[in-house]
Amino acid sequence: MNDSNNRRFNVAVVGATGAVGETMLSILAERNFPVGKLVPLASERSAGGTVGYRGEEYVIEDLAGFDPTGIDIALFSAGGGVSKEYAPKFAAAGAVVIDNSSAFRYDDDVPLVVSEVNPEAAKLRPRGIIANPNCSTMQMLVALAPIHRAYGIERINVATYQSVSGAGRSALEELARQTGALLAFQDADPRRFPVQIAFNLIPHIDDFLDNGFTKEEMKLVWETRKILGDESIQVNPTAVRVPVFYGHSEAVNVETREKVSAAQARALLASAPGVKVVDERKPGGYPTPVTHASGHDAVFVGRIREDLSHPRGLNLWIVSDNIRKGAALNAVQVAELVAAGG
Amino acid sequence: MNDSNNRRFNVAVVGATGAVGETMLSILAERNFPVGKLVPLASERSAGGTVGYRGEEYVIEDLAGFDPTGIDIALFSAGGGVSKEYAPKFAAAGAVVIDNSSAFRYDDDVPLVVSEVNPEAAKLRPRGIIANPNCSTMQMLVALAPIHRAYGIERINVATYQSVSGAGRSALEELARQTGALLAFQDADPRRFPVQIAFNLIPHIDDFLDNGFTKEEMKLVWETRKILGDESIQVNPTAVRVPVFYGHSEAVNVETREKVSAAQARALLASAPGVKVVDERKPGGYPTPVTHASGHDAVFVGRIREDLSHPRGLNLWIVSDNIRKGAALNAVQVAELVAAGG
Repeated sequence: MNDSNNRRFNVAVVGATGAVGETMLSILAERNFPVGKLVPLASERSAGGTVGYRGEEYVIEDLAGFDPTGIDIALFSAGGGVSKEYAPKFAAAGAVVIDNSSAFRYDDDVPLVVSEVNPEAAKLRPRGIIANPNCSTMQMLVALAPIHRAYGIERINVATYQSVSGAGRSALEELARQTGALLAFQDADPRRFPVQIAFNLIPHIDDFLDNGFTKEEMKLVWETRKILGDESIQVNPTAVRVPVFYGHSEAVNVETREKVSAAQARALLASAPGVKVVDERKPGGYPTPVTHASGHDAVFVGRIREDLSHPRGLNLWIVSDNIRKGAALNAVQVAELVAAGG
Repeated sequence: MNDSNNRRFNVAVVGATGAVGETMLSILAERNFPVGKLVPLASERSAGGTVGYRGEEYVIEDLAGFDPTGIDIALFSAGGGVSKEYAPKFAAAGAVVIDNSSAFRYDDDVPLVVSEVNPEAAKLRPRGIIANPNCSTMQMLVALAPIHRAYGIERINVATYQSVSGAGRSALEELARQTGALLAFQDADPRRFPVQIAFNLIPHIDDFLDNGFTKEEMKLVWETRKILGDESIQVNPTAVRVPVFYGHSEAVNVETREKVSAAQARALLASAPGVKVVDERKPGGYPTPVTHASGHDAVFVGRIREDLSHPRGLNLWIVSDNIRKGAALNAVQVAELVAAGG
């Protein structure tokens, strides 16, 4: 952002009481976003309560009754249904909407932006709406975009290890509750997920589609192509929920047009925006959700090594905080692009 | 086994107090293995204690002072060092050693046997030693061998999700202890693993090698080729420890010489020995470690779907009890092959 530009922006945060909404507020403060008026919004149920921002308490307003006139930037993270209903109203009133749901991601006239990857796309927003990608796509592309630009990625095979925070606050509570129950020799009693998540894995995120993939898996396919602007990239994903609170991890194999050595990839990623390489080939010399992801902004990349099964294959282990870079941080970074006149 | 053959076998279980050793004893009983004399063996530290078998207590003898004369079959699961020292002595005394460690797996004159995949290999054992494969290879090949035979596998990309029981009893204790500590707001205090495993992932199992892969990963490469008897199969593995007590899971992508549809793969696997297909494309319609692996003999396969990124690619989600099929059960099944005159 241009520090000499003293303009301030009235910011609405829709879904302010959620895991992502709360993090959006703290990241706006951390990054000194030029907030004029701040309006936290939520459903009627949460309205009247308060959220903290820069040491002050803000009363949460009811989204349904709110008049968006005068809002410059609206950060939405309250689910697809809420976005579909209210984002167009905010946009019609003149706000730029940055939407964290999947409601508009695949619309041709809505840009899908990762701030380090395709910031220029944020400028073209005919509907006044910019979509924030899915968390697992976001972190994967921060790491893969530099490789794609330098060597050309033809194919991506990815297996995810996704934390429960990606499924919201109720999922965090479910993992904590089930873990406590099982340690006390009680039943796990699954509620939020179809089967027990504590000490277990669930190879199923979002709905199943006709091709046998889940919607979460197809997001990795659709969003990768849209963000990199290359429909020829082949993506084959498996998405798995793991009993981790915060931080998504991904075992990624890419095949490039031009051969890239592990050393070349390491050097390229070491200077890539938003990426931190942690790759020492010794105990602890790799990123993990607890040691690297939780509360950190970067996308961490380790286990960089050449594919044993393909002459132009490369393996990466990618870890990031799905609530920060995977959602709230990128939304605020996109707001910064908008504020900077983008 | 031939039921009309009334011969009984004197069986030694080396490492009888370990997670795998205990399961070997219960599987010998479950499957009515024709045990004559049973001798549980362990280190001096455990000697003098007892283990249960068919409702009776057996005193554990000290391996170091034990004379193997008269033992017909010795099941070893006490680590590579113990196997290297004692397995040849048991074999020299006339026993057939079935060894669960990696000490002899890559020796040309030691067969590496998965009972459903290459049972004939158990007959050729010039050193009197048969090796049991690594748990992650074992379950993968029970599912992949039928596909390889019918369609020819050229390449395997696998990301594992391995439970802590694969690292032994101390690892089970570490996950339980750390989980309890963290729920009580205390430090995880990593001891058994280099970083916290509770609510975390560790992309590192066994030592790092010069090529950047871990030894656990290379076992998947070396053992797949040896067991399938095909050095042309390309394998590219990522091995990750997950906070699950029992059951290993694997996201597997294979490329075959001939195209195999998801329906063909499902039909083939439905009748494959040792495999159970759980693949309903609805919530809960897939195997998970807790719902399917723990205490079950089969290798469970779900999420069967055609690769989006390759015309002859196929995806599978493979789950099995790493202590049973991945170790103790296969060892007993190999003992059955030996007992049947193999």
